[in-house]
Amino acid sequence: MMHQPLADEFRYRLHATDGAARLGEVVTPRGVIRTPAFMPVGTAATVKGMYPEQVRALGADILLGNTYHLMLRPGAERVAALGGLHEFMRWPHPILTDSGGFQVMSLAALRKMTEKGVTFRSHIDGTYYELTPERSVEIQGLLGSDIQMQLDECVRLPASGEEIARALRLSLRWAERSKKAFELQPKGRALFGIVQGGDAPELREESARGLVDIGFPGYSIGGLAVGEPQEVMLRMLEVVNPILPTDRPRYLMGVGTPDDIIESVARGVDMFDCVMPTRSGRHALAFTRFGRINLKNARHADDPRPLDEESDCPAARDYSRAYLHHLVRCDEMLGSMLLTWVNLAYYQHLMAGIRAAIAEGRFKAFKAEVKEGWARGDIPAR
Amino acid sequence: MMHQPLADEFRYRLHATDGAARLGEVVTPRGVIRTPAFMPVGTAATVKGMYPEQVRALGADILLGNTYHLMLRPGAERVAALGGLHEFMRWPHPILTDSGGFQVMSLAALRKMTEKGVTFRSHIDGTYYELTPERSVEIQGLLGSDIQMQLDECVRLPASGEEIARALRLSLRWAERSKKAFELQPKGRALFGIVQGGDAPELREESARGLVDIGFPGYSIGGLAVGEPQEVMLRMLEVVNPILPTDRPRYLMGVGTPDDIIESVARGVDMFDCVMPTRSGRHALAFTRFGRINLKNARHADDPRPLDEESDCPAARDYSRAYLHHLVRCDEMLGSMLLTWVNLAYYQHLMAGIRAAIAEGRFKAFKAEVKEGWARGDIPAR
Ligand SMILES: [Zn+2]
Ligand SMILES: [Zn+2]
Repeated sequence: MMHQPLADEFRYRLHATDGAARLGEVVTPRGVIRTPAFMPVGTAATVKGMYPEQVRALGADILLGNTYHLMLRPGAERVAALGGLHEFMRWPHPILTDSGGFQVMSLAALRKMTEKGVTFRSHIDGTYYELTPERSVEIQGLLGSDIQMQLDECVRLPASGEEIARALRLSLRWAERSKKAFELQPKGRALFGIVQGGDAPELREESARGLVDIGFPGYSIGGLAVGEPQEVMLRMLEVVNPILPTDRPRYLMGVGTPDDIIESVARGVDMFDCVMPTRSGRHALAFTRFGRINLKNARHADDPRPLDEESDCPAARDYSRAYLHHLVRCDEMLGSMLLTWVNLAYYQHLMAGIRAAIAEGRFKAFKAEVKEGWARGDIPAR
Repeated sequence: MMHQPLADEFRYRLHATDGAARLGEVVTPRGVIRTPAFMPVGTAATVKGMYPEQVRALGADILLGNTYHLMLRPGAERVAALGGLHEFMRWPHPILTDSGGFQVMSLAALRKMTEKGVTFRSHIDGTYYELTPERSVEIQGLLGSDIQMQLDECVRLPASGEEIARALRLSLRWAERSKKAFELQPKGRALFGIVQGGDAPELREESARGLVDIGFPGYSIGGLAVGEPQEVMLRMLEVVNPILPTDRPRYLMGVGTPDDIIESVARGVDMFDCVMPTRSGRHALAFTRFGRINLKNARHADDPRPLDEESDCPAARDYSRAYLHHLVRCDEMLGSMLLTWVNLAYYQHLMAGIRAAIAEGRFKAFKAEVKEGWARGDIPAR
């Protein structure tokens, strides 16, 4: 799986704006990422329940891999020896990795945070690890990640202003250390700084300005969609995005629902990732133009109709609701496989619609129309 | 999914023999089944972890569905109202169903067997059901099964001669009742009688002769591969097959390993089904021309080589052993999906090889060669 480099540099091209919404592309040596982009999550080097070719065929230009999971299993040095993450998981297109910090906070045991970094024990076998800004970048480099994240500290909300400020300032110091460590890596890869600051506008501003001063080829917005109301998240985007340079991509980490995504695009975000389409697919929940549909519901048991007869996705168009209901009730793998497929197809379809709408200057109307469809809800039972 | 009937009758054509091995085809209105044939098991209207198109592409001409599972969920009347099992599970090709009796014995609670039939409670929700020879055929008819099985009683071995004889005689009376009930069904479907008789040659003979007297379009051989040594199973085939008419297909139920299959073909069997390739695929075990390979084994952790670089199956040829090992260790769905694919591909590849060898009169040499490959074992670790 050798691939000709498409470009030897990482860069972002802004093609069009429509209000604050941006149409563009991120160019990397491994391929172009059309933005606004949704990145399916491939936590442990697999998008759960999908063949890699299938994910690609849905229109995904980039996947996300989780550094925390991969450093534990199979291990970054092992992946490197096997030719890197792209080769390992048979995904020759761009990959973005997180820093591992967020998952250490949510999954690992016996965490201890210092100025130097964080130590923890694996949630799998209790092995002791240390993750510093330098080691995180080293691991992401061993994986061969195209877009890497600085290690940061993301505080749980609600938190006091002092606590939020302490964490964002630590994250800024780690941003500088990360950038320095990243200098060892081959050209064409990018390291993003991560804006923190919780739900405090002035702290978000401080974080964004600090990162822009350090200078990164792209900026992530972290610590949102962690339970706060959507309006708080959107308000933070309205504070942060105007500070970020227009010639760099903006990635809203871990977001979100289709509604979160479309509202964040409206506020200038370019990149998203979320486990929602894949995790929901394993829990009988389908995302469609009619909104969310719970296939566990008995109303589907005798329904010969597909989820959406107009969908391009075979899983949404060709399989009956009755069959999907049956698979889900029997806990059959194929149920998870089909609904994950439905959901990833819907997310990519939504992103393609968003991009087309921005290109044609009708993003606002598109957004209203899509939200109307969700509000109308599912087709009536029969 | 409307399909033009290919034939309005069920029939078996014997094309060639090589020793006792038979090359032929079973012609049904829904399609031709090339024999010797392996039928993947689609217990609950899905071959676990596979899209139906994928199963087809591997060369499967027919699937097996389990009456017991389908009568409980989603229910035979529901499947019928939805257009039948083929439509429901998107498999327009032939389907064989068992009678439900075997699974009632192994899975259901509070079984009570009488001359009339068997009553039991569902292992899922405790609902009370009655399964008689007539009801089993009715259910299989509602599912739209192309090849149906009579209800029989399969005794666990070891058992006394009296017990085996009692069960086979009951099964013969049920065979007559099943045949009568089956008369109500559309032309082109077939009902098979099932040879019982445990591990007693004279009782196997009595059963086979009794069924041939009643007359069926095909014969199943049941109650084998239930824990007895392979030589006992093969000896029973040597007793039974010469009694069965050469112009009817012979189906050895629930068998087996690749070695069981090739040795049974050598003794005149035409059709097989087994959960082994699918179940093993979900338990990290791959069937290959090198024999069985356990992907859980740490020897694969750093091995960039595929399972079999010469395989036609992308799962066996394109994914590294290291990656498969990782997926299996992380209990990732994709691990089960890929190894199920590997195994079903290997089984179908084996059947295609068997058919080609019989056609060319070199079955014995083929069998020796394939068994030699298994005996040599996996490629050396490196
Ligand atoms: Zn999320
Ligand atoms: Zn079996």
